[in-house]
Amino acid sequence: MLRAVLLLALAPLLFAQSDEIRALLKNSEANWNRGDLAAFAADYEDAPTTTFVGREVTRGGVAAILARYQRSYPTAEARGELTFSEIEVRPLGENYALALGRFSLKRTVAGGGDAAGRFTLVLHRTPKGWKIIHDHSS
Amino acid sequence: MLRAVLLLALAPLLFAQSDEIRALLKNSEANWNRGDLAAFAADYEDAPTTTFVGREVTRGGVAAILARYQRSYPTAEARGELTFSEIEVRPLGENYALALGRFSLKRTVAGGGDAAGRFTLVLHRTPKGWKIIHDHSS
Repeated sequence: MLRAVLLLALAPLLFAQSDEIRALLKNSEANWNRGDLAAFAADYEDAPTTTFVGREVTRGGVAAILARYQRSYPTAEARGELTFSEIEVRPLGENYALALGRFSLKRTVAGGGDAAGRFTLVLHRTPKGWKIIHDHSS
Repeated sequence: MLRAVLLLALAPLLFAQSDEIRALLKNSEANWNRGDLAAFAADYEDAPTTTFVGREVTRGGVAAILARYQRSYPTAEARGELTFSEIEVRPLGENYALALGRFSLKRTVAGGGDAAGRFTLVLHRTPKGWKIIHDHSS
């Protein structure tokens, strides 16, 4: 019962977290598809503790993340068209959240062909809004 | 200054989180290497929301996670010898934590050969101790 009351009291907050993070991802997809990698990378927290796990681990703030994306996706063809799907957002207390989903890149053969995978994001609520503090994509 | 004071006040808690989770991982490694997959799977939260992202997403509690491990690692040779390394633990507030690291399996050729990769764990402090609520391994 206490648990139900607590959940009820927290519900507006939790729904807001989910909506805010879904909006961030929608915007992130649009940034990528406009070719604006700087805006895409600005969703990561600009801190030395920020991590991106792909084949290797990239550490550091926005500049390190941006450099990684620019290296891996140097042209519009290599970037292709990004779609996020199967998005789930789970609150981790008030100021952190977990977001999971699937990414797919529609690309020409010259751009590397279609690619897809799954991502795990851990986000932190900061004075500048939600920021990604850890990304594991595979 | 306020930030420094706050960090100082929280430090014992944060160090405790990290120590507890490192101990859990040490124990988890030992469970695997003893062939006790049931104990290994019991570190996951027994809840329908628990997720394991590998090539596909496994959902559900301990039974679902255990079934996945039993399917993927049916024999002692397939399990090989597990080592976790490069472990980092980051608190996400008081009751959640992020743990990253590298796993490697030393295996015979018949067991599938050596394998290695990286994991991201999100853990939740529960009345039964820290439990993994999300695992992304690749």
